[in-house]
Amino acid sequence: MPGGGVVDGDLIARVLLTRVFEPGDETAGRWLREQGAPEVARRLREGGAALPGVSGTRWAGLLARAGRAEPRRDLDLAHEAGVRFVRPGDGEWPAQLDDLGDARPLGLWVRGRPSLRVWALGSVAVVGARACTEYGAHMASVLAAGLAERGWVVVSGGAYGVDGAAHRAALGAGGATVAVLACGVDRPYPRGHTELIARIAEQGLVIGELPPGDHPTPCRFVQRNRVIAALTRGTVVVEAALRSGSLVTARAALRLGRHAMGVPGPATSGRSAGVHELLRGEAVLVTDAAEVVELVGAMGELAPPRRGPVLPRDLLDPAARRVLAALPGARAARPAEIAFGARTTEDEAIARLYELRSLGYVERHGDGWKLTRQAVISVRTDRGPC
Amino acid sequence: MPGGGVVDGDLIARVLLTRVFEPGDETAGRWLREQGAPEVARRLREGGAALPGVSGTRWAGLLARAGRAEPRRDLDLAHEAGVRFVRPGDGEWPAQLDDLGDARPLGLWVRGRPSLRVWALGSVAVVGARACTEYGAHMASVLAAGLAERGWVVVSGGAYGVDGAAHRAALGAGGATVAVLACGVDRPYPRGHTELIARIAEQGLVIGELPPGDHPTPCRFVQRNRVIAALTRGTVVVEAALRSGSLVTARAALRLGRHAMGVPGPATSGRSAGVHELLRGEAVLVTDAAEVVELVGAMGELAPPRRGPVLPRDLLDPAARRVLAALPGARAARPAEIAFGARTTEDEAIARLYELRSLGYVERHGDGWKLTRQAVISVRTDRGPC
Repeated sequence: MPGGGVVDGDLIARVLLTRVFEPGDETAGRWLREQGAPEVARRLREGGAALPGVSGTRWAGLLARAGRAEPRRDLDLAHEAGVRFVRPGDGEWPAQLDDLGDARPLGLWVRGRPSLRVWALGSVAVVGARACTEYGAHMASVLAAGLAERGWVVVSGGAYGVDGAAHRAALGAGGATVAVLACGVDRPYPRGHTELIARIAEQGLVIGELPPGDHPTPCRFVQRNRVIAALTRGTVVVEAALRSGSLVTARAALRLGRHAMGVPGPATSGRSAGVHELLRGEAVLVTDAAEVVELVGAMGELAPPRRGPVLPRDLLDPAARRVLAALPGARAARPAEIAFGARTTEDEAIARLYELRSLGYVERHGDGWKLTRQAVISVRTDRGPC
Repeated sequence: MPGGGVVDGDLIARVLLTRVFEPGDETAGRWLREQGAPEVARRLREGGAALPGVSGTRWAGLLARAGRAEPRRDLDLAHEAGVRFVRPGDGEWPAQLDDLGDARPLGLWVRGRPSLRVWALGSVAVVGARACTEYGAHMASVLAAGLAERGWVVVSGGAYGVDGAAHRAALGAGGATVAVLACGVDRPYPRGHTELIARIAEQGLVIGELPPGDHPTPCRFVQRNRVIAALTRGTVVVEAALRSGSLVTARAALRLGRHAMGVPGPATSGRSAGVHELLRGEAVLVTDAAEVVELVGAMGELAPPRRGPVLPRDLLDPAARRVLAALPGARAARPAEIAFGARTTEDEAIARLYELRSLGYVERHGDGWKLTRQAVISVRTDRGPC
């Protein structure tokens, strides 16, 4: 279908381009910024003249990849697998990814119910060594559980070691977690985490830049880390050897004006050497979730305490409105009770509760959730004085 | 001998006042600054009118202490025990203690051969928990040995745990170490460190503000820490629980414009919690001696590399000149060889080598010592062009 995808505009063009360009390709980003995705896609599909600054050999390679791409089929396959494609300008697009400039992802493939945009607003990355020690796994778990209990979304890379411990602890605390993969989101990597990643997709979000079926490569792991850094309020590194990929994430976070944090360990442990190096720079030492939250701050930008929730109830989507309505007026309720009241599943209820938290309507309270003071006031105001 | 000591001037007055005032008494410091030690001593010995800002009860207590004081006997006892009294204005007085302002010690009782002033110029404090873990003891040893090997003087408090490990490692590396006690320097505390403190006095220095025979008290331990902080270029804390005395030393160091450093440990260890608190503030994380030295810097103020040693050879004291002359021109030599050449003991040779290092003449080289490039040039210059 030469040129066929192009007339369908930006969506088809971007899906096609995820098959052509590697993540983080800034030359591609510049072309898109200057010419728009449809035009770049058209030139690649029609085999036009090389775009500026690209060698003949590279251009031929890109043309070949574009020729093999089947964007409509990718979208169909994704749709069947419950995967959606979220791109800049979409309501669900996390605007903070725009901070990546020309290295901004072309779009993100997303599995899971919650709104990526809303969840990302109250998220923290917990990353670290694959081959972590027991201490590292313990610290990742304690931090992630503590963050989840405080209503924060735990973002990580789905890998063995620290990442896995962080995801599991967030899930275990009935919390929110997002796995950012360096491969197609339909193709869990590592294989040993197939079940874990499926659980994350059920209760949270599994996202990635790469189109369905794509494999991870060393370069893709590195580029994936910039997405983790840009998506979150801050990155906590729990155990990392010198030259570990987690340090890339933390340094990217600093470059992007996010917080970089590190969990100390014994000075004698090579698995902590990278973290210590980081802590000798601009990163902040943290030993528990409270210290992380102290740094990344309350989610005040969205929910200024004096002014009530930012988004009026009427503008919430119907599922979120039902969950909000299911919360008791004065006490906390568990997700199961809220889900029952909202006539939905517990996973769906949790997804919506985290959205509502980011918007300032609800807060965690032990094992349960309750309306914030601001939400109660706003509900009263909605109802008028009588 | 009422008033008898007073006519002997500042020395006798200060020795007397170390029996009257507790270390760090800033009111006493102000009196001394305003009226001079002899006048303050005179009023206390003659039972004159109370000094400004002191209650009648307190004044009576001070008078009683002054009445019991026997400064000449203290000096005689000290002399017999090989202890000297170094006071502001003396050639051996470490000028950096003046940064303590009115909390400056009245003087210091000193056991050991080396010049306190010269040694203090190239010194770093390594302090920490008495009840340290094996990890803490290990880190204290590794750091102190590394500092000693680089020619730095290791200062600590002579206590069990981290302090003891630091002193022992410095001695073991054939290095320089100073114990700052919170009691009379003739009265080793803790008793279990009697032998260690004796070894420090042989190979290094044992110093303190308190007159012979005085006991340590909690308050004296705290005040002792300000001396450690002021004396050194920086303070490294190796394991410290929250509210540990070592944190007092580190915070005093920061207030005095010195470097405060901390060795990280597991976030799960209460013995590292105080260090981590410190590292979340202005202190710098360090994991080895090289990082400590990187921070406290080369001893450049005294030995600017381009200008050769600051103090001309002629002004060195004879013992130091003999040791300098015993160094081979081009290669490194061990302390035993240098001591043989200088016709002195190995301990004396080491004491002088550290002085010469602070003055820019020599540097450590593995197990041995050699002339610095600057010293070689300066020797050539001394001899003239022919």
